[in-house]
Amino acid sequence: MSKTNAGNFFEDFAVGQVIEHSTPRTVTEGDRALYGALYPTRFAVPSSQMFAASVGLCSAEGPHPVEDLIAFHIAFGKTVPDISLNAVANLGYAELRFHQPVHPGDTLSTKSEVIGLKQNSNGRSGVVYVRSTATNQRGEVALDWCRWVMVHKRDTGLEAPETVLPDLKKPLAPEDLVIPAGLDFSSYDFVAAGEPHRFDDYAVGETIDHVDGVTLTDPEHMLATRLWQNTAKVHFNTEARPDGNRLIYGGHVISMARALSFNGLANAQLIAAVNGGSHVAPAFAGDTVYAWSEVLDSAEVSDSVGALRLRLVATKGRDESMTLRKEEGEYADGVLLDLDYWALMPR
Amino acid sequence: MSKTNAGNFFEDFAVGQVIEHSTPRTVTEGDRALYGALYPTRFAVPSSQMFAASVGLCSAEGPHPVEDLIAFHIAFGKTVPDISLNAVANLGYAELRFHQPVHPGDTLSTKSEVIGLKQNSNGRSGVVYVRSTATNQRGEVALDWCRWVMVHKRDTGLEAPETVLPDLKKPLAPEDLVIPAGLDFSSYDFVAAGEPHRFDDYAVGETIDHVDGVTLTDPEHMLATRLWQNTAKVHFNTEARPDGNRLIYGGHVISMARALSFNGLANAQLIAAVNGGSHVAPAFAGDTVYAWSEVLDSAEVSDSVGALRLRLVATKGRDESMTLRKEEGEYADGVLLDLDYWALMPR
Amino acid sequence: MSKTNAGNFFEDFAVGQVIEHSTPRTVTEGDRALYGALYPTRFAVPSSQMFAASVGLCSAEGPHPVEDLIAFHIAFGKTVPDISLNAVANLGYAELRFHQPVHPGDTLSTKSEVIGLKQNSNGRSGVVYVRSTATNQRGEVALDWCRWVMVHKRDTGLEAPETVLPDLKKPLAPEDLVIPAGLDFSSYDFVAAGEPHRFDDYAVGETIDHVDGVTLTDPEHMLATRLWQNTAKVHFNTEARPDGNRLIYGGHVISMARALSFNGLANAQLIAAVNGGSHVAPAFAGDTVYAWSEVLDSAEVSDSVGALRLRLVATKGRDESMTLRKEEGEYADGVLLDLDYWALMPR
Repeated sequence: MSKTNAGNFFEDFAVGQVIEHSTPRTVTEGDRALYGALYPTRFAVPSSQMFAASVGLCSAEGPHPVEDLIAFHIAFGKTVPDISLNAVANLGYAELRFHQPVHPGDTLSTKSEVIGLKQNSNGRSGVVYVRSTATNQRGEVALDWCRWVMVHKRDTGLEAPETVLPDLKKPLAPEDLVIPAGLDFSSYDFVAAGEPHRFDDYAVGETIDHVDGVTLTDPEHMLATRLWQNTAKVHFNTEARPDGNRLIYGGHVISMARALSFNGLANAQLIAAVNGGSHVAPAFAGDTVYAWSEVLDSAEVSDSVGALRLRLVATKGRDESMTLRKEEGEYADGVLLDLDYWALMPR
Repeated sequence: MSKTNAGNFFEDFAVGQVIEHSTPRTVTEGDRALYGALYPTRFAVPSSQMFAASVGLCSAEGPHPVEDLIAFHIAFGKTVPDISLNAVANLGYAELRFHQPVHPGDTLSTKSEVIGLKQNSNGRSGVVYVRSTATNQRGEVALDWCRWVMVHKRDTGLEAPETVLPDLKKPLAPEDLVIPAGLDFSSYDFVAAGEPHRFDDYAVGETIDHVDGVTLTDPEHMLATRLWQNTAKVHFNTEARPDGNRLIYGGHVISMARALSFNGLANAQLIAAVNGGSHVAPAFAGDTVYAWSEVLDSAEVSDSVGALRLRLVATKGRDESMTLRKEEGEYADGVLLDLDYWALMPR
Repeated sequence: MSKTNAGNFFEDFAVGQVIEHSTPRTVTEGDRALYGALYPTRFAVPSSQMFAASVGLCSAEGPHPVEDLIAFHIAFGKTVPDISLNAVANLGYAELRFHQPVHPGDTLSTKSEVIGLKQNSNGRSGVVYVRSTATNQRGEVALDWCRWVMVHKRDTGLEAPETVLPDLKKPLAPEDLVIPAGLDFSSYDFVAAGEPHRFDDYAVGETIDHVDGVTLTDPEHMLATRLWQNTAKVHFNTEARPDGNRLIYGGHVISMARALSFNGLANAQLIAAVNGGSHVAPAFAGDTVYAWSEVLDSAEVSDSVGALRLRLVATKGRDESMTLRKEEGEYADGVLLDLDYWALMPR
């Protein structure tokens, strides 16, 4: 019997099944530095121990939290060998919540529960819904999320399982958000943070063109994707796709767009939740990624903290018109990512 | 009103104005590792905690100082969004002094004072002189420097401000140098450091061909430039220049040349000051960078420490003749960088 | 006299000579992060402080050991300026033993003793055999190994030295292996480690195709090679070879193959020793590297620990037939690396 991991196929999943993913991973200051080398991020909390301490997210001695997306990528990467090695497509996310910031020294482990199954009518694949939970070394939840992927069947002759569709919130309500313990923006330093715009300065419906663009390269997205121990072949191996291109991990585009959004959303310090996201088109080396945002909703969540619900759109080539969809309803040409999330800002 | 940062234009600066730059940045061991991956540096102080402790620059428990240029790049990067986002050209540096080594865990913030202004005769741009100061989390000065940049005017109809030209030293005198507290080269280990040549072995006028070359790549200079949170578009975006090339951050060439200079100057452990520097020609991926040095001056600064004033020249392609200028006085073909600095060496 | 290092030539070596290599190097968490960004490694000990503590390799407070190959690359890199700067070829390794795991904060220094010399019949070069030993800041041996390189003569007119050939073990016996103090696999978590296969599940003669491939790039191997302070020109300078290609450091291929071998050998947590290795063919950017392994021998070394002697073969392009040699005895086309090592696994 082969000792290598062939991954799970559609018929290997059953509703209620719990999968403990391998490779617990300790977060380090090296992850923070590499993230800063890979993405043009300048958010003050992950950049400065002093700033993070001033808003209650670490002690004066540190260490300060890392970017929320570092925690997400690490936690997500653990699920790939069990959930999506045989995936046809990553269909969607919902109900992603950050329960507490992650600091260097924390060790993250992830497990997933199968919460839904639906075989496709062609009998050759099906959709698997999982709720994944990443916990730290104290057994506390760091983040959890749902995602659904289309997975091949190994044996197409097998009967379809009973269809179970999970009841997922889209989007999360403000009262679903977890505000990190200790978070206090009452003595927030807007000069250090880089922009004067506070929660109340953003209006629902407002759009922001983040102006800057970054041209992607293969070595950079591979460094990032490996750092998260994400092993999907298509990101690394030019022999894995007929066109000889490496497909860029969707999370690389998420992190690039989030970092670009600093220019206009510098005070959107923390991601509280992701309501949903679509990787609309694949990205490849040579593409120049730009980003724009739209304010979808807002809510006051504490005396000093407001939550903005934002749409973050990454495009290939700049679209100053910030057009999400064509008249027919399809995504506009050039849209790579459509991400719906809640950010925490000073009021 | 747009929420994104359009940067300052010439008319936004006034002599005496103080600008607090955003994004305080905590230095980490990840920065040291990335610097070592990006540049072929082998200087013993930043390489070895034991060595650094043996010359008085950290306790036996560490952490040991990072490369001086890490501190410079981080401190400099903070000034870009306010000072040089609309710069036509980075014209020069002067009076850069390192006041103390920077260690992992230190958080650097930078502020700048406008010390000079001169509108160009064309009325469309002007030169802005600033003195920038980076301080650590204790409010102590880590380094300061002057630079001048040519910046566009937004409104060319505005009247020219009064011309003020600062009085800048070129070069700094040995008595201007700050010798780090505790620095003691009296039990310096020349074997561990890699070369036997001490301060007294170098003669004014001597030139050293550093022999080795490195061919530049786009992913590497982008990783470096982002690490310093330097966001100038031309380094990252192939759509930002008509020729479709990414312009390499001048600091990347400085760090590459300094690292190459190890071969012949292994004991030039610390940079005390930079007297001036010119980015003579732009560098691009594919260029192979070599370096040579010339000893310009020397001074004994303590019982165990000597200061060498060095010219560090980076060239595209090796020039064994070490020619700085053509007969007409122009820089020789292939010269990329002409940097004048003071280094501290064991006597 | 030139101040740059021209390296040693064949006639500069004498049997019994001891060379203290320069540039002691402190290992950091940044090295761990970069290693994980450069190679698709997922071994649980270097990934997770909790896992490492659970098998006795660090305290609950950490830090946990880094990959064994990080220690090897750093220790090896120190020998290059003295031993192999003028090498024609790196001919072989033997008797490489890891004496204890290396942790962030450890400072490694390397020295080498010349243990053999043999001038080539052409009189223009010769083979130098050295035993190199890397010690930590406490003076304890971290690893040691023998290697032999063919080195140019400076002066071909000089007489040949007496031929001395060292008596090297090939391979090391199980009783030669050093089991790290405290190592205890009795409560090993196979789920966290990623595969159920334990020591007893592997049979001598068994081969494992590790399935995955990675296409190499220039920026990535240069980042790796610089991180180890390995300064051999051919890895960095496109002007150093007639074909304009950068030759990839052989250690990059070793680390890539070892990381790929996780898929099928996830529980081969530690490398105890390397018995020998050949870089069969050079690797260049654009090559897609795959790996396969063969079980050569096995031995029980403690109640909970078994040692597997493994052949690790890296190939350019996947060879599902796992053919090492042609009928004539030459290595099969596409073989890049043939490495013979002892790994420690849970029984």
